[in-house]
Amino acid sequence: MSKQELAVIGQDTDGDCCGRLASAPLDDERAAELAKVFKALGDPVRLRLLSMIASREGGEVCVCEMTPAFDLSQPTISHHLKLLRQAGLIDCERRGTWVYYWVLPGALDRLAGFLTTPQAGQVPA
Amino acid sequence: MSKQELAVIGQDTDGDCCGRLASAPLDDERAAELAKVFKALGDPVRLRLLSMIASREGGEVCVCEMTPAFDLSQPTISHHLKLLRQAGLIDCERRGTWVYYWVLPGALDRLAGFLTTPQAGQVPA
Repeated sequence: MSKQELAVIGQDTDGDCCGRLASAPLDDERAAELAKVFKALGDPVRLRLLSMIASREGGEVCVCEMTPAFDLSQPTISHHLKLLRQAGLIDCERRGTWVYYWVLPGALDRLAGFLTTPQAGQVPA
Repeated sequence: MSKQELAVIGQDTDGDCCGRLASAPLDDERAAELAKVFKALGDPVRLRLLSMIASREGGEVCVCEMTPAFDLSQPTISHHLKLLRQAGLIDCERRGTWVYYWVLPGALDRLAGFLTTPQAGQVPA
């Protein structure tokens, strides 16, 4: 599931210059796929969860460490994490009682690359 | 309105390294503000509109040029454009009959900077 979604955020586009938001008008299909990823980021709880995972040295966070930071039930937290996973931003693994989450390598940087304008890449002469 | 929202996406953070998603866990307030921006991007029509504007040479697009690309009424298109404007991504000006839209300078690159991981900035030794 994650792999399929990941392709959306630039992995399979043909080069760094292409498939950017500011390169050419997006087609329907790509817009629909990318909108799912941004929709996953369009919630404060999910952004905080993703930030907790992305900023963790070592790269992995146990769900048991995330839940206490929120005034929400563990099933609700797990649901938000599932949406981030379906968007191809994170992945997880169960080990014993707990589930551990990490950011999929390159996912955030590919999304950043999609938003970066061609102008931003220009080096002053 | 745009100016207020724009601060959200990095303009007022203290330096390039800080305030990134992967630098440290986001606080409630910043997560709520950034979620609004990503929510604005979390819709295929809005992503296509933003892409049409961002990819236009010269930087400005008349609403009259955007509407025919969609099977939607002009009020619906205008509503989507309003949400992008409220997110601090675009601005507009009425000239005679039509309203012209452009991407706010730096808005996309600041959002890209927020998503970029510290690792992505590292130059191999």
